[in-house]
Amino acid sequence: MSRYFIELKYDGTNYHGWQIQNNANSVQAEVNKALTTLFQTEIMVMGAGRTDTGVHAQQLFAHFDIYKAIDTTQLVFKLNTLLPQDISCSSAAEVNAQAHARFSATARTYEYWITPNKNPFLINKAYHYPKNLDIALMNKAAKELQNHIDFSSFSKSNTDTHTNNCRITFAEWKQVDNKIIFTISSDRFLRNMVRAIVGTMLEVGIGKVSEDDLTPIINSKNRSNAGTSAPAHGLYLTQVNYPKEVYNV
Amino acid sequence: MSRYFIELKYDGTNYHGWQIQNNANSVQAEVNKALTTLFQTEIMVMGAGRTDTGVHAQQLFAHFDIYKAIDTTQLVFKLNTLLPQDISCSSAAEVNAQAHARFSATARTYEYWITPNKNPFLINKAYHYPKNLDIALMNKAAKELQNHIDFSSFSKSNTDTHTNNCRITFAEWKQVDNKIIFTISSDRFLRNMVRAIVGTMLEVGIGKVSEDDLTPIINSKNRSNAGTSAPAHGLYLTQVNYPKEVYNV
Repeated sequence: MSRYFIELKYDGTNYHGWQIQNNANSVQAEVNKALTTLFQTEIMVMGAGRTDTGVHAQQLFAHFDIYKAIDTTQLVFKLNTLLPQDISCSSAAEVNAQAHARFSATARTYEYWITPNKNPFLINKAYHYPKNLDIALMNKAAKELQNHIDFSSFSKSNTDTHTNNCRITFAEWKQVDNKIIFTISSDRFLRNMVRAIVGTMLEVGIGKVSEDDLTPIINSKNRSNAGTSAPAHGLYLTQVNYPKEVYNV
Repeated sequence: MSRYFIELKYDGTNYHGWQIQNNANSVQAEVNKALTTLFQTEIMVMGAGRTDTGVHAQQLFAHFDIYKAIDTTQLVFKLNTLLPQDISCSSAAEVNAQAHARFSATARTYEYWITPNKNPFLINKAYHYPKNLDIALMNKAAKELQNHIDFSSFSKSNTDTHTNNCRITFAEWKQVDNKIIFTISSDRFLRNMVRAIVGTMLEVGIGKVSEDDLTPIINSKNRSNAGTSAPAHGLYLTQVNYPKEVYNV
């Protein structure tokens, strides 16, 4: 048996998130269907993480197992013809049988896209937020995030995780052309965490919440003290990192 | 009576082009409707040019006349709330009563976007062309364009123009991130011209047409000698230039 990683990209607008579920279309179901058609045997993929309804991915790895040798160039080509146009496969590689798309990942990076102006080319692809934002202040808040470990204040309650600790290694706001982009990297993310952080930072950016309030909000470990979640359609999973050992076959 | 320019941007996917017509939706009709609602009097806009079905605009100016003073900041804001999400207004300004969105324009610039890889974020926004392209060769052809005046070979026949002469001042292919973008500026463009030029240059890029064939193709003044038109959804009107005198009110 061999295990393969596939690198996927998708526009999440028309999906109820990554994870397969009854009575709703999902990216995972589409990928399973395409691989099952391709190999004429039931294939199930395990993804690096679950994105919510409307959230996009520029890079999400998934693994699957199969009892035959695969030409990965052909796999990428054929998968792209079988997958719907809003899901694509960028690469594929055989990996170690112990490699796991979710548990082997050492870091993940998300971007959150904001468009200050109405933009016909960013419908469902960026959050239209017309208020004036103080990006320098938001970057102070972003720096402060890196001094903390427990992000319960930015997590959906009642999730089944053992700990709410995350090691945030990068967090920055940047003006890029006509967009304002927040980039955040961490070893792991809690459910809804990036959108709750972005929502809170937007309140910092418009002066509704002071940068000094951020530490007490985090320390309170209480979701209701943080800002409302920013909408899903501005969020992109952009990078998932693995140790190079996963490729030792 | 005062004349105003409005600067528009639109995703052309859901429109049968710019120009108003019976039994088909158009960008012009949407803009007329929004302005008519806003001013409670019938307003008709004249655009800088006609884009075909599926063609996009990053910048298209249109003019309209009205018998009252307008706060242009308010106009932009209100127009954006009245226009559908795939059409936006970037700016507005009062112009000289002689200024004409179409006839006063001194230059126009188009971009044509190609994506070599399947890309879920560029559906209807770039032409997916997976063949290997020799961009250096395509740039030689782009340079050659600037040595010619009569572009009948790249024009839809039976159009009602008096001349097929165009002064191309810029034409270049460039790799930009994950896209290959062709940019072309001219004092005017013939119907279908950019898409016919792009289609022909793609044939140069894959070696089907030699760069030396381009001059005879142009000199033949025969559309059937050039390549097939590249699809509409990769094309963007990106800039329209006016002499500064149009703003002398």
